Amino acid sequence: MPQIRVTIWNEYRHEREEERFAKVYPEGIHGAIAAGLREHDGLEVRTATLDEPEHGLSDSVLDATDVLFWWGHKAHGDVADETVVHVHARVLDGMGLVVLHSGHFSKIFKRLMGTSCDLKWRAAGERERLWVVDPGHPIAAGVGEYIDLDHEEMYGEHFDVPPPDALVFVSWFAGGEVFRSGCCYNRGAGKIFYFRPGHESHPTYFNADIRRVLANAARWAAPVAGPRRVFGNTQPLETLELLRP
Amino acid sequence: MPQIRVTIWNEYRHEREEERFAKVYPEGIHGAIAAGLREHDGLEVRTATLDEPEHGLSDSVLDATDVLFWWGHKAHGDVADETVVHVHARVLDGMGLVVLHSGHFSKIFKRLMGTSCDLKWRAAGERERLWVVDPGHPIAAGVGEYIDLDHEEMYGEHFDVPPPDALVFVSWFAGGEVFRSGCCYNRGAGKIFYFRPGHESHPTYFNADIRRVLANAARWAAPVAGPRRVFGNTQPLETLELLRP
Amino acid sequence: MPQIRVTIWNEYRHEREEERFAKVYPEGIHGAIAAGLREHDGLEVRTATLDEPEHGLSDSVLDATDVLFWWGHKAHGDVADETVVHVHARVLDGMGLVVLHSGHFSKIFKRLMGTSCDLKWRAAGERERLWVVDPGHPIAAGVGEYIDLDHEEMYGEHFDVPPPDALVFVSWFAGGEVFRSGCCYNRGAGKIFYFRPGHESHPTYFNADIRRVLANAARWAAPVAGPRRVFGNTQPLETLELLRP
Amino acid sequence: MPQIRVTIWNEYRHEREEERFAKVYPEGIHGAIAAGLREHDGLEVRTATLDEPEHGLSDSVLDATDVLFWWGHKAHGDVADETVVHVHARVLDGMGLVVLHSGHFSKIFKRLMGTSCDLKWRAAGERERLWVVDPGHPIAAGVGEYIDLDHEEMYGEHFDVPPPDALVFVSWFAGGEVFRSGCCYNRGAGKIFYFRPGHESHPTYFNADIRRVLANAARWAAPVAGPRRVFGNTQPLETLELLRP
Repeated sequence: MPQIRVTIWNEYRHEREEERFAKVYPEGIHGAIAAGLREHDGLEVRTATLDEPEHGLSDSVLDATDVLFWWGHKAHGDVADETVVHVHARVLDGMGLVVLHSGHFSKIFKRLMGTSCDLKWRAAGERERLWVVDPGHPIAAGVGEYIDLDHEEMYGEHFDVPPPDALVFVSWFAGGEVFRSGCCYNRGAGKIFYFRPGHESHPTYFNADIRRVLANAARWAAPVAGPRRVFGNTQPLETLELLRP
Repeated sequence: MPQIRVTIWNEYRHEREEERFAKVYPEGIHGAIAAGLREHDGLEVRTATLDEPEHGLSDSVLDATDVLFWWGHKAHGDVADETVVHVHARVLDGMGLVVLHSGHFSKIFKRLMGTSCDLKWRAAGERERLWVVDPGHPIAAGVGEYIDLDHEEMYGEHFDVPPPDALVFVSWFAGGEVFRSGCCYNRGAGKIFYFRPGHESHPTYFNADIRRVLANAARWAAPVAGPRRVFGNTQPLETLELLRP
Repeated sequence: MPQIRVTIWNEYRHEREEERFAKVYPEGIHGAIAAGLREHDGLEVRTATLDEPEHGLSDSVLDATDVLFWWGHKAHGDVADETVVHVHARVLDGMGLVVLHSGHFSKIFKRLMGTSCDLKWRAAGERERLWVVDPGHPIAAGVGEYIDLDHEEMYGEHFDVPPPDALVFVSWFAGGEVFRSGCCYNRGAGKIFYFRPGHESHPTYFNADIRRVLANAARWAAPVAGPRRVFGNTQPLETLELLRP
Repeated sequence: MPQIRVTIWNEYRHEREEERFAKVYPEGIHGAIAAGLREHDGLEVRTATLDEPEHGLSDSVLDATDVLFWWGHKAHGDVADETVVHVHARVLDGMGLVVLHSGHFSKIFKRLMGTSCDLKWRAAGERERLWVVDPGHPIAAGVGEYIDLDHEEMYGEHFDVPPPDALVFVSWFAGGEVFRSGCCYNRGAGKIFYFRPGHESHPTYFNADIRRVLANAARWAAPVAGPRRVFGNTQPLETLELLRP
């Protein structure tokens, strides 16, 4: 079985600019995610960051990417529109996309969703409990009934995204909110998974269950060798005699 | 605009058999729901209970019912299978059905869902907060971002129902659980709404927001004058020449 | 019951520039749609066209619009991006949007869908049969099992849109194609209906069933007085003591 | 990677009782399906038929079944209710189920769907064209834009099933009908795929594309090692202090 080629894209500014975040993620958020994915079979992992040339997402990198992970927060506006257009086209052509936490406000996610992707938030480091609501979904393989995170930023409803095509996790927060935390979307020939946890000030991406979910998501979002999608003007009606009963 | 004819069906055993429940619902749970619906326009309300002849659901009653509400708990097994078969057929033919709280285990709901409809529960009278996750849905009209209930029984995931065709409410519970509390289903020509709150020991059906949701649900679930559904053997192919371009 | 205020937006170039289209739609496509809606109760109808100032979609017009219909084809690029941004925000805030036929490639529809919205087509004037696949849906009220159109442009799968939140019509074409012709979407607090038929060279908008579907769609897409959607930073955790059990 | 264990259940009466069907399927319909699956990797295939003891579906067989295929037609009523109850429970616990053609009226499919599962039909051996409408779905891997079958029984809408959780194929028929031919459902921890073609009088199960779809369906429907689903009364609220922020 061929490896799934994953590229983890990270804004990588928090960790370089503020020591408190560097302490949590000394190898960067992308480094922690990459280490987590490497604990699981069948995944070939590379990383890319905002401040690399072409944001690390050249055509040759994207050509070699089955599933792209996306973590961004304070520099969404620095991502070139051209990159967003390229990534968007790739997703519709089948590349998987896993959008993490504050990536909800990334250009690529908003473009794919068609909504504001806005939400409620509170940075109080409170308890989050992610309940599995679709226990037969491949993204929930190997986890328990719920995943507990002692300290996370809160995201609350209303989350302005389209109704997910499959809803895998719903979060409970100590402060009284709920959130649709694991949302699957099919767009074009591509699959998109939004996964809520992962604030830069909490070691969420070192959690074994979170890592398992990310590995599952990579496998679920990998491209399928489906039919080439054909658009545009099609054959004249006169040639269709064969269709007659 | 013609009135929507609602029949509220209640098991009506708790309130007759135990004083503590009679104190909460002196007119029965059905009585409280009926009073709540009567506060809203366009609804013509009657009630029916388990221990009436034919469970109060004769053909003539069902003929005059656009939307049936269903509250049951400890006597699901006493509902005649024949009644369930009749109600099931009516729903597929377009009658709306609003299933309340412990009605999740009713014969009619399980038959329509095709799953166990099982769930987790705890009778601790804890706080429930129902968040609206689909603010454009007609069932959410006139309510705020959430509905707070100071004391309710907890229902928790996993809730073994099909993925809802629309998810309107998600509940947060003080004890750490979440629940898909407002679930819409389209089955045949009929619409079904499951609404979680309403334990017999709490005055939930006197809450103005809950009453508003129930009135909205009655309007949403009312039958639509759609096409008659035609099944079975159809015209021979030879007669289809008109379809040729 | 208050009237639903509908604004029908039409590109209105085909009918002014080519006599063969003017013959089919002497009052413009918008004129035919408006006349059709006026045959039905509860709708207050106005029109707007591309070459009016602000494309006829000033703030005051949009303020007075519950549901916007959109027909465009060859001049999608002439619609100002600013207008698209305004309409997009209105839809997320609850304004209904009914996108017609070649409007599948309009800026506003592509922005809301997040996909290419591409499809297959053939202009052979062949027979289209629109089957109702969701007979309980309000948009199917009053029509039969299917709607026959003797001559229409063909649109075929793959139609690159998100999986619809409800699928009401599927078209059969004489030349061998199918198409998801009536697609409902919920986005933000707004509702969107895409309806396939309506090529400029066929008198589709004079068909009584098509007119009925459009009137149904206007009613279905009308805004709901749901909760105000609240986003952003929320109250500090310390104030949440009331939530404790 | 462990093999997926598939059991193909066939009514196996047509082929034994009428020579014209035996000619099409000399090894039985189950034999042709089994041969088709064996052309694909990763599947371990066995068969079972109605007239074997326990219909060939003893506990030990079901214990060794990851995905059950179901073909039945004229003897649905001969399947023991007890068997249906067992299979139903297995599906909710995660066993995959692939229901074929006239299996739409099987007890197990109706029980899982909760609807009549009725449809329109015509036995004219007309052309069917199955269009892929979800090209990124794993069940569509390796097939083209559509699958052409020269001669098949027609099934037409309205098909009285719940809205599918994913719609993969829509059929076009020469006689003017359409049909939702490839429907995915998630029920409990299990996955169900309904696939329309496969009348006993046509050699559909020898078609290479149909066989590929069936193999894909087996892989898609295979159980996921998700969380054990826990139901019933849960821990008392007093023990939940750890949940406090």
